Amino acid sequence: MAVTEPAGTYPIAQLHTFCRRIFAHFGVPEADAQVAADVLAAADLRGIDSHGVARLRSYYDLLAVGRINPRPRLQILRETPSTARIDGDNGLGLVVGPQANRIAMEKAQAVGSGWVSVCNSNHYGIAGYYVLEALAYDLIGWAMTNTTRIVTPLWGAEAMLGTNPIAIAFPGKEEPPIVIDMATSTVAYGKIEQAQRLEESLPYGWAIDRDGRDTNDPDAVVDGGAQLPLGSDYAHGGHKGYCLATMVDMLSAVLSGANWGPFTPPFSLQQAIPSRSVGRGLGHFFGALRIDGFIDPDEFKTQVDAWIRTLRATRPAPGTQGPLIPGDPEHEAERRRRHTGIPLLIPVVEDLRFMAEETGIAFD
Amino acid sequence: MAVTEPAGTYPIAQLHTFCRRIFAHFGVPEADAQVAADVLAAADLRGIDSHGVARLRSYYDLLAVGRINPRPRLQILRETPSTARIDGDNGLGLVVGPQANRIAMEKAQAVGSGWVSVCNSNHYGIAGYYVLEALAYDLIGWAMTNTTRIVTPLWGAEAMLGTNPIAIAFPGKEEPPIVIDMATSTVAYGKIEQAQRLEESLPYGWAIDRDGRDTNDPDAVVDGGAQLPLGSDYAHGGHKGYCLATMVDMLSAVLSGANWGPFTPPFSLQQAIPSRSVGRGLGHFFGALRIDGFIDPDEFKTQVDAWIRTLRATRPAPGTQGPLIPGDPEHEAERRRRHTGIPLLIPVVEDLRFMAEETGIAFD
Repeated sequence: MAVTEPAGTYPIAQLHTFCRRIFAHFGVPEADAQVAADVLAAADLRGIDSHGVARLRSYYDLLAVGRINPRPRLQILRETPSTARIDGDNGLGLVVGPQANRIAMEKAQAVGSGWVSVCNSNHYGIAGYYVLEALAYDLIGWAMTNTTRIVTPLWGAEAMLGTNPIAIAFPGKEEPPIVIDMATSTVAYGKIEQAQRLEESLPYGWAIDRDGRDTNDPDAVVDGGAQLPLGSDYAHGGHKGYCLATMVDMLSAVLSGANWGPFTPPFSLQQAIPSRSVGRGLGHFFGALRIDGFIDPDEFKTQVDAWIRTLRATRPAPGTQGPLIPGDPEHEAERRRRHTGIPLLIPVVEDLRFMAEETGIAFD
Repeated sequence: MAVTEPAGTYPIAQLHTFCRRIFAHFGVPEADAQVAADVLAAADLRGIDSHGVARLRSYYDLLAVGRINPRPRLQILRETPSTARIDGDNGLGLVVGPQANRIAMEKAQAVGSGWVSVCNSNHYGIAGYYVLEALAYDLIGWAMTNTTRIVTPLWGAEAMLGTNPIAIAFPGKEEPPIVIDMATSTVAYGKIEQAQRLEESLPYGWAIDRDGRDTNDPDAVVDGGAQLPLGSDYAHGGHKGYCLATMVDMLSAVLSGANWGPFTPPFSLQQAIPSRSVGRGLGHFFGALRIDGFIDPDEFKTQVDAWIRTLRATRPAPGTQGPLIPGDPEHEAERRRRHTGIPLLIPVVEDLRFMAEETGIAFD
């Protein structure tokens, strides 16, 4: 039986409860465990399988060996009415991120916008979670984070930057919101792992081997190679993807005093710890803009609806159904998966069962 | 003699003076004409030839027929301590942009950050100009603008969005600043025009023809085709470039009440006026973040230097000199061109001479 075949589908409530109890098992306070489980559930619901319960095992391992602080106390190191820098006290990113994001939103409520850089944190799940939170308050939310190195700068032969995602969302009135949540590499690392499992070759433009040569062999990427930034090569704008990854690293890590570039901490116990430390933990950047600080929110949302309908009516390219709106696939996945449950791959279910056995927390 | 061959090189001071006098000729106040010439000169110095004096003729034509207001009075339509929405009174983007950017910077000085959306403006030159202004005040500057439609959303067969650029800059201590200034399409439109003049074919992944099919023929792009967003196709992340163009359009135009998407006004007299208007003029978005609202600026710049040196030391890909730092090529062009002057193509010099004759303002 192939490992890429789903072992079955599981109701989101079951997965959420299990995640929450696993976090609580390590001493994460109940309210924090709840939020952390919310972040993972958002990924599973929205079809971003790599960032949901599939990652619980990595958090588990890091908590088990004491590499993550289950009870962080966030500290504001510096602030102005619209900005702050926060030390995440080496907490779970899934706990530190939502708290820091709330500070950005509170500042926006007070003075129109709020911007928070965070150091001494860990991986925070999907960036999209944070910007969806902001929508409920008529805020345009922004979220970025630096991540473990896997992407080469254009014309490099080694991984120096993370997939450094950017998220931002805009509310519609009758239409669902426009939600942008994108890595600044050509593809997610998960797609390379999947090709490796299926023994398929990669499209050129995704990655290089350990010598810096273009490759279509997933093994060569996993074995010391690197992903290419969005745009792939110079002719197609690979320098632009590299610029975006740079922007995210500057705002998330350099502006917060976190580790940047190749020194960003690893995501799992299996990854090597960087040769030196240039700051504390990894870094995030959150922003919130009050729509009514610019324009009447109802007028804004009416125009967003018109924008969406105009773009949906674009003449389709041959062989396609025409353009999607950013966030459409995730919105559709969520609608579907709330009913059908979350399909999980066999290795993911095996990990969940392992954690259930180790902790005595029931999974299925 | 090929039109792509330089007609000669011209000292920047000569070009600046000519631009300033041309703007003043149409009634642009002296101080505004000076700033507008500064913006064009910044493009020529930094090697972004398409956005410097090469564009003066388009501004000239629009001023000559009264499509642009030479004496705009900016109006703040709404504001909070850290945000504002401004009506540019149909002024030159080169005049409205710098004034709106200054408001963003002043708000940042007061409360840590400033964010300004602008409607009823026109094309504002290079986005990089605005973020370089912010550096002098230890601000991280942001600039975006929507532009005339030329880019298709992924899976579309027609131009619905502009090349919608994003700029942001970060100061170093001893190293030159990191300056990001990038269109969200695979390449600048100028590269397609150049291939057409040279009768060269395009790389696939840049553009589609009028039927939405991939094309390598520059004539087919100019004749009713469209450019592709950064990432080119789905496999290489073309949806991400489309997401970035969407973000810029939302912040610059929808958040300001300007025309968005396919309704963004044309840049030159030769382009068709959109079928309907959904707002006022075109839109910009400016931001400024006070570095000391997060972290000690000296500490920040020291880390930026370390980041730059670390990335420069990346092992080079075969056949390359290794990665550049964002802003390196423009910084090097400026250093060189201040001494050697600005190389201008024959059609550009012809345009300048035409305007000189028409106005009686000396060019050469």
